[in-house]
Amino acid sequence: MTIAVVGVGLIGGSLAITLKENGFAGRVIGVDQSAANIDKAIRRRLIDEGLPLADALRQAGLVVLATPVDAMARLLPETLGLITPEQVVIDVGSTKGQLLEAVKAHPNRGRYVATHPMAGTEFSGPEAAVPNLFDHKCAVLVDVKDSDADALELVKRMYAGIPMQLVELERDAHDLHSAYVSHISHISSFALALTVLEKERDEARIFELASGGFSSTVRLAKSSPDMWVPIFRQNRDYVLDVLDEHINQLARFRSLLIKKDFEAFYQLIEQANDIKRILK
Amino acid sequence: MTIAVVGVGLIGGSLAITLKENGFAGRVIGVDQSAANIDKAIRRRLIDEGLPLADALRQAGLVVLATPVDAMARLLPETLGLITPEQVVIDVGSTKGQLLEAVKAHPNRGRYVATHPMAGTEFSGPEAAVPNLFDHKCAVLVDVKDSDADALELVKRMYAGIPMQLVELERDAHDLHSAYVSHISHISSFALALTVLEKERDEARIFELASGGFSSTVRLAKSSPDMWVPIFRQNRDYVLDVLDEHINQLARFRSLLIKKDFEAFYQLIEQANDIKRILK
Repeated sequence: MTIAVVGVGLIGGSLAITLKENGFAGRVIGVDQSAANIDKAIRRRLIDEGLPLADALRQAGLVVLATPVDAMARLLPETLGLITPEQVVIDVGSTKGQLLEAVKAHPNRGRYVATHPMAGTEFSGPEAAVPNLFDHKCAVLVDVKDSDADALELVKRMYAGIPMQLVELERDAHDLHSAYVSHISHISSFALALTVLEKERDEARIFELASGGFSSTVRLAKSSPDMWVPIFRQNRDYVLDVLDEHINQLARFRSLLIKKDFEAFYQLIEQANDIKRILK
Repeated sequence: MTIAVVGVGLIGGSLAITLKENGFAGRVIGVDQSAANIDKAIRRRLIDEGLPLADALRQAGLVVLATPVDAMARLLPETLGLITPEQVVIDVGSTKGQLLEAVKAHPNRGRYVATHPMAGTEFSGPEAAVPNLFDHKCAVLVDVKDSDADALELVKRMYAGIPMQLVELERDAHDLHSAYVSHISHISSFALALTVLEKERDEARIFELASGGFSSTVRLAKSSPDMWVPIFRQNRDYVLDVLDEHINQLARFRSLLIKKDFEAFYQLIEQANDIKRILK
């Protein structure tokens, strides 16, 4: 099968090379507004060739939208308008509410499957793409009742073959969950980086000391604003809810420190340790 | 040289096996209030034998205190009272102010070198000890002017041979820096775990979705309260300063989300990206 990947960055490029390597894709066409990205993607063998969107759509059985989510809101209706009833379109974006709203009445809505392969790194661009990024991670399929059965079948087969674990969610549940397990981690990490950078004006030394713990909590602070600002814009309401909760939790620790109530502080850490149940 | 390691957990055990493997230690005696820990440490070949503190001190050229920092505040004066002027004592704790205050007038103060090898994982106990934990990390030597020249020389040789990078700091600078690069990361991570666990009462599904980003920011939330509560107790004032700053930074993101000012949000992320300068 020929696949068109629109946006050959970290996610699109990683999916392209993965599907090429496991045989699901016979040929991968890249579409990107940056000619430099197309060049890099070809040289890194992520894609077989680069074409304009309309040309790519004429040849692809499956179209993968992998741009930042603001561009998707424009590209998805346009793409659905250009395809035939045999073709299938997916997106791989991190928020779904606005995107699904934008195409809910589209005559080709059934050919579209909303997906979110939950994997990534703090890097971006085709140079960050790697073949095993998605292995054994979770792919969320959103509002599957609105997709044609054959389109859904194809997409499930694609993700299951990587292999990824499949989960189906409604759009609101997906966007809330994304806020919890992904978007808030990024804001927390951005804020932690700023906290330390603020101090660094006085104290250059601090960075010689940055140990493993700091590196891992602050890793996501390297993430690209071009990818993340559109996500925060689209998922603003849920992100605000979760951010309020996160600030509340930090305020609990603060209040216990002020009161020097280290017994309760101990219990709070024990509660947090409960995360071991879930993440090994 | 024979070394006594008091507290054969993650840090003490890792240091023991490292110094044994690189030849700095001919023999390592473990001291631990838990007989089970001594057994595990011997079976894992972290130490050669286990002895009570007083017996170990009669045989060791170098004594390493590697217990939680509250126990150190009791053990350090006791240990300095039991050694001869040829022996050297170090601690490897994460806070220094109270510890140094406790021994400032001790007749054997010069035999003690305050150190903080800045490495660790979220795990604890002898089963978590690994030989390469400290390689190429930073070891901070604190208030070195109060240590005898020969004692300092021995400790520098020990850390440099691992190899670790040596940094000298005054106690206040050390405790503030530790609050910034280590202690706040832990509180942030504990709070993030609680944020998500709070929600999970309603939504079991959230954990199927926990992706790489969440795992890394929340990794430190698995850390032991037995180790960390004494640190937060001793370093309370600096941790509070840094926590206030961190909550302020999160509040900036919150305020921009409320105002939907995504241009300023973009700029804030760009500023946070500046952490790339320091952490590759």
